[in-house]
Amino acid sequence: MAITKGSLILIDYTAKVKDSDEIFETTIEENAKKSNLYDPSIKYEPRLVSIGEGWVLKGLDEFLSSAKIGDNLNVDIPPDKAFGLRDPNKVRMIPQRKFGDKADEIKAGDVVDIDDRRGFVRFIGSGRVQVDFNHRLAGKTLIYNVNILKILKTDEEKTSSLVKRRILVDSDKISISFNKSELTIILPEESFLIDGLQVIKKAISGDLFKFIPSIESIKFLEIYNKSKPTSKAQTDEAKAQTDEAKAQKDEGKAQKDEGKAQKNRLL
Amino acid sequence: MAITKGSLILIDYTAKVKDSDEIFETTIEENAKKSNLYDPSIKYEPRLVSIGEGWVLKGLDEFLSSAKIGDNLNVDIPPDKAFGLRDPNKVRMIPQRKFGDKADEIKAGDVVDIDDRRGFVRFIGSGRVQVDFNHRLAGKTLIYNVNILKILKTDEEKTSSLVKRRILVDSDKISISFNKSELTIILPEESFLIDGLQVIKKAISGDLFKFIPSIESIKFLEIYNKSKPTSKAQTDEAKAQTDEAKAQKDEGKAQKDEGKAQKNRLL
Repeated sequence: MAITKGSLILIDYTAKVKDSDEIFETTIEENAKKSNLYDPSIKYEPRLVSIGEGWVLKGLDEFLSSAKIGDNLNVDIPPDKAFGLRDPNKVRMIPQRKFGDKADEIKAGDVVDIDDRRGFVRFIGSGRVQVDFNHRLAGKTLIYNVNILKILKTDEEKTSSLVKRRILVDSDKISISFNKSELTIILPEESFLIDGLQVIKKAISGDLFKFIPSIESIKFLEIYNKSKPTSKAQTDEAKAQTDEAKAQKDEGKAQKDEGKAQKNRLL
Repeated sequence: MAITKGSLILIDYTAKVKDSDEIFETTIEENAKKSNLYDPSIKYEPRLVSIGEGWVLKGLDEFLSSAKIGDNLNVDIPPDKAFGLRDPNKVRMIPQRKFGDKADEIKAGDVVDIDDRRGFVRFIGSGRVQVDFNHRLAGKTLIYNVNILKILKTDEEKTSSLVKRRILVDSDKISISFNKSELTIILPEESFLIDGLQVIKKAISGDLFKFIPSIESIKFLEIYNKSKPTSKAQTDEAKAQTDEAKAQKDEGKAQKDEGKAQKNRLL
């Protein structure tokens, strides 16, 4: 099966700055550790890419559209297809006092957030700070070492990868089943309180309808099971605490409603 | 079926301050309109109460535990079983300047939020503001006119009321079905983006397990259906816009990740 626009593929890659050989991103744990990029909260695993969708840098996207499964290649990506050219107008002199309480602590090399933008401090002198608001990798040619692992073929593996892309739990904890054009996704309890889960489900639905045309409806299922109390005493205690908390909360709410009603009348 | 602790009942009520005859809360639209309480965003309908759970004021809760279906009675509730006694120590003199920019606009009768508490301005003079932090109804005897409409008997009607209590959509849009000890609740699409829906589902599950002991598991189901495009041109246009938005978002994310990585290295 050839890679074409709309294909879903899994790739491993390690990306470097060409000049300095500095690794700035990788999907491979070993390479992350070698380059001090390693973050234990990240799960290092192949990345899902849809060709031609802008999910990766333009230069990489273009390369992938003509790649073949099994390729393991180095790709040079020029700045205009990576993080853009450097813009000298994005280097600004800023009065040091604008940095408020922290003004005295700023030093060259710091990353600072100011005026809703993130920049890099180049030097400080005479009460002024030179900040470079260009992307750190603007103007750089990058080298991606890319390993094209797999093209996703079945609806099951596409679904699994598209769900996992947006819900960061182990994919074997998410149950996926098809009944003709009807897809059912059972989410594990550990995902129930993920920030923005409802928006994530909507986005996943959009992805699935787009990439798997045979799907007509998607059911998201969340199952709560009654917990089995270990002893009666514990249950009663827990119940008493819950009741108390609830009473306090209801009282607070009543007071707030009252306050609102009162305010409405008085204004 | 007698009303006992743990019963779920539906009541209508209209609550007044005994001294002034002022209505401050009601479940009946007509009474809300008569008393200038009416808020078109509120659905006026009977309220679900679980006896002995503190869902309503203590005095009302006690009254309900000995009431009978069909009762339509006036209940006097003394302050200590309503909003508490008035505490003279909760009346404070506060320097007017503490109210910041708005200090000059404050007048007697205003409701103000200060020091994380809500109070009522009694008078202003010599640069000081007397604020009463007692609940507006503290010290008041209340009269509730209560109509005991119904005791909920079947698991279906209990479930429906307990779900509706926390999800404010028309209950006929929520589908509820039992398969022995397994309950399935299908939520309508209009509820998918309700603020805090995931926490609400967890709370509803807790309520259902508590009030309907036969339930062993609860499935919440949300169904997304593929939308049928009205014409090809529209679809293509929508798609182009989505792709563009996504590309911009991914770029933003990449930049942010980069920024984070950079920061980690530099600090």
